[in-house]
Amino acid sequence: MLADLDTPCLVLDAVRMRSNIARLKGRLAPLGVALRPHLKTPKCIEMARELMATPQGPATVSTLKEAEQFAAAGVRDILYAVCIAPNKLERASALRAKGVGLMLVVDSIEAARAVANHARAKGDAIPVLIEIDSDGHRSGVQPGDPVLVELGRTLQAGGTVLRGVMTHVGASYDSRGTSALEAIAEQERAAAVRSAEVLRAGGFPCPIVSVGSTPTTHFAKRLDGVTEVRAGVFVFFDLVQAGIGICTANDIALPVLATVIGHQKDKGWILTDGGWMAMSRDRGTAKQAIDWGYGMVCDVAGRPYQDFMMIDASQEDGILALREGSKASLPDLRVGSQVRVLSNHACATGAQHDRYHVVDGGPAVVAEWPRFGGW
Amino acid sequence: MLADLDTPCLVLDAVRMRSNIARLKGRLAPLGVALRPHLKTPKCIEMARELMATPQGPATVSTLKEAEQFAAAGVRDILYAVCIAPNKLERASALRAKGVGLMLVVDSIEAARAVANHARAKGDAIPVLIEIDSDGHRSGVQPGDPVLVELGRTLQAGGTVLRGVMTHVGASYDSRGTSALEAIAEQERAAAVRSAEVLRAGGFPCPIVSVGSTPTTHFAKRLDGVTEVRAGVFVFFDLVQAGIGICTANDIALPVLATVIGHQKDKGWILTDGGWMAMSRDRGTAKQAIDWGYGMVCDVAGRPYQDFMMIDASQEDGILALREGSKASLPDLRVGSQVRVLSNHACATGAQHDRYHVVDGGPAVVAEWPRFGGW
Repeated sequence: MLADLDTPCLVLDAVRMRSNIARLKGRLAPLGVALRPHLKTPKCIEMARELMATPQGPATVSTLKEAEQFAAAGVRDILYAVCIAPNKLERASALRAKGVGLMLVVDSIEAARAVANHARAKGDAIPVLIEIDSDGHRSGVQPGDPVLVELGRTLQAGGTVLRGVMTHVGASYDSRGTSALEAIAEQERAAAVRSAEVLRAGGFPCPIVSVGSTPTTHFAKRLDGVTEVRAGVFVFFDLVQAGIGICTANDIALPVLATVIGHQKDKGWILTDGGWMAMSRDRGTAKQAIDWGYGMVCDVAGRPYQDFMMIDASQEDGILALREGSKASLPDLRVGSQVRVLSNHACATGAQHDRYHVVDGGPAVVAEWPRFGGW
Repeated sequence: MLADLDTPCLVLDAVRMRSNIARLKGRLAPLGVALRPHLKTPKCIEMARELMATPQGPATVSTLKEAEQFAAAGVRDILYAVCIAPNKLERASALRAKGVGLMLVVDSIEAARAVANHARAKGDAIPVLIEIDSDGHRSGVQPGDPVLVELGRTLQAGGTVLRGVMTHVGASYDSRGTSALEAIAEQERAAAVRSAEVLRAGGFPCPIVSVGSTPTTHFAKRLDGVTEVRAGVFVFFDLVQAGIGICTANDIALPVLATVIGHQKDKGWILTDGGWMAMSRDRGTAKQAIDWGYGMVCDVAGRPYQDFMMIDASQEDGILALREGSKASLPDLRVGSQVRVLSNHACATGAQHDRYHVVDGGPAVVAEWPRFGGW
């Protein structure tokens, strides 16, 4: 039972998780693209199996540790979606030598040369995607840049296999409203498709055209030319996604369970044992129209209290209070009462914990699923 | 060697760590108070032994997991310095039954009753400190409040032992300049001492008067009436502490080692494999005079580059750039080069990792020390 758990801890609402997965899969089916779920969010093999089309994949990861952990559980089709550092190539090849179809990403001639030289030296025909910069937010080659063909040549000269292109439009997190979200999804699609066309014109077939972010996968009107989408945080959703308008608080599947440890009655504060260590330091809603501090507070059954939020945090203390100016009344929560706190960013909050306590809509904990961290 | 490490990872500069410890111990000796180091920062037994006066303690912790881990390594004098949740009392008593001198904290009649009832039921004379609110920032009883005596009576009625008072002046993090820091240290001292006097007048001896925060332990001019100080982050220091003026960048002992994975030359960006997962989401310097983004960037030997900072982060990508308006030139860092990034908040950054790679001033890794997380 939830009441028996040592707090703070992560609760995973499996009903909401499955509904979130079904919603995205239902969206993608008519668009004719595959889902390559980003497993950097759950870092848990039980959840990977809920997300992937088959026990072998496809899957996306953000670290070689994730690739190794999921490979050990039987996943075979894995995209490591961060530009490869040369000193990671040995580890990548070791995994490939075990029969794992691990694909790497590059966005520079320098890295392409390193991968090509390594591939030749090891006799390992590593499949590679080129990252495209669809929004100026991070890494990647400019869409359609002629350097794409040069990258293809550099990679193939060493015996690696250029498999296509990938992009992630992080700018989608700053978009609001259906038409803006549709437009940024189209920007992401067009950047990838245009780059694939340049490569094909240069003689590279580009069977994979991979795009994705949780906002754009939920708002793309068309995905012509795209072969797969990647998304991660949709499996849990969080307050940032609710603020963008991708979900509501009732879809958020990953609350932190915390226990009331005291009050500062003069200030209208309720203190809990869930501080920033349990929530993470992510303050993603600070930049949104509604700032939730460190979280939105719900009762132990998951019903949000009106205007009740986690306004501040120490390492192991959370401070709960009504939103400034609220006319609501402070919930009557005695020392020892439990609350659920919905967090700003599920990827960051999840990473503070080593397991999920799975509930199926009720107060019973039906399973405990481990999650891993590290690199 | 550092060059052989899988990045991102934590480097612990043992020379700086030992100098930071020696500095604080040298400060406290003439003031006649003991150090009860806060082990929530390192979460590592090897570091605990560097910090504690004896292998048995004294020590401060912020979770029962920390208490259990350090107790398993022989620590016996432990203060769990967060107000106790009633559902944690069984676990606390289980540790005490093994001979660990674990002390708990309360700040309300409600919690005091729960501890007293538990103590009576278990026949466990749990020693308890009362938390004092010295700055209005978190939990605690108002300094000198008559409820202190009532708390003492409630605790002793159940067979627990009131051992004294403790306070932490988190407001010290917002203080700047020697006189302000001395004043906030005196505010912390006075709040604790006055509360102990009220308790003594009510018939409670109060042998422990415990204060502490890294800024105040470094600036207190006198500590009359105080028996011990608690501090944690000083062992590593970080950019927030440098911003307050407690240390310089050259004292910071816990850089994150990261590897360059690409460039966006038009923008003057260098990308690394150290994103927010490696640094934490802590943006503590955002509220200070000099905002370092996610970190200050140094070369692999630890020398800071001029005006070079981590301006943004994805989960596993760091973006390095010169500070806006800087006349310095961008370091020539090829793909595969390593950098050290000093973080905003060592407690948060440390928690993202499971081990320390210890260096002794040079490029050789002389030890690997595990650290734990969780609750």
